[in-house]
Amino acid sequence: MSKLPGVGPKMASRLAFYLLQKGTDDIKQITSAIEGITESLRQCSGCGLIADAELCPICQSESRNNNQICVVESSLDVVAFERSNSYNGTYHVLGGILSPIDGVGPEQLRIVQLLNRLTNLTEAEVILAMNPSLEGEATADYLKSEINKVNAKVVVTQIARGLPMGSDVEYADPTTLIRALEGRKEF
Amino acid sequence: MSKLPGVGPKMASRLAFYLLQKGTDDIKQITSAIEGITESLRQCSGCGLIADAELCPICQSESRNNNQICVVESSLDVVAFERSNSYNGTYHVLGGILSPIDGVGPEQLRIVQLLNRLTNLTEAEVILAMNPSLEGEATADYLKSEINKVNAKVVVTQIARGLPMGSDVEYADPTTLIRALEGRKEF
Repeated sequence: MSKLPGVGPKMASRLAFYLLQKGTDDIKQITSAIEGITESLRQCSGCGLIADAELCPICQSESRNNNQICVVESSLDVVAFERSNSYNGTYHVLGGILSPIDGVGPEQLRIVQLLNRLTNLTEAEVILAMNPSLEGEATADYLKSEINKVNAKVVVTQIARGLPMGSDVEYADPTTLIRALEGRKEF
Repeated sequence: MSKLPGVGPKMASRLAFYLLQKGTDDIKQITSAIEGITESLRQCSGCGLIADAELCPICQSESRNNNQICVVESSLDVVAFERSNSYNGTYHVLGGILSPIDGVGPEQLRIVQLLNRLTNLTEAEVILAMNPSLEGEATADYLKSEINKVNAKVVVTQIARGLPMGSDVEYADPTTLIRALEGRKEF
């Protein structure tokens, strides 16, 4: 149990004792539900999002703009963008971020799949939406150069770095302030 | 003592008992230091920053770009920008933010002083750097229209809203994501 993320030794024994109290039927229900995760869910063959069919609902949708692809690290990032209700393009889930220290190179990520999606597009925009970190910036640089090699017509943009809503200039870290100043726009 | 910000009843009595233990000389030192705050410090007549002379070091400096004015809410915001070491213009401290509910209107803020600074400039940029909040946006709107009335040549910009460094797309609030998407730039 302690191998699950966010579950420490205390929580693990609590879960174990809870399951011990349950009857065999309840246990079977739980294990079959867990087994069902890997059986019924898979990666969307288009964008890599967790889906229960060959294509996820977003890739299947006809109202989505297929010429706009927002590149994110994980499926949870897609959930965050969908919650904001402000984006009508499609996504591409990389499944991680370039990190040589952790042994994650381009071949470990869904980069080839992204480039394949772009080859035949004429008027496309790729929106890079990796987390604002050193690895995120390095991955963005790498993707930009690879995308340009495959299809020079694709416009590559990056979501804005700056002050989040409800934050305080006073407590903002220097790098965020620098990015907010650099990214200022006519008001 | 409990009237000081961040000092609750417990901390207040702790401070009071600490001062009781001190001799008269120590007490005098402390009170004269506190009195000195109001006597030796004042608002810079240029930008409104807390200063120990008629003009603050930033307004006095000849290496600063006087045609670039960053408008902030408080002196502490100036400290934050100076810490980031990335800005070479001047500042203007409003001394608060428009908030009708709290009875803060334009005449309570240093807005007239800002407009006076702008009247004779020919190639100026005003960078609005209020906190990203409803009041901040309302104040920005108001300033923009007042500035245009006084001097239409002044370019008004706003620092970027978006994801701060080290943050996670996954946990970003919807409004911040919307602003980050809207503010995306070619990479």
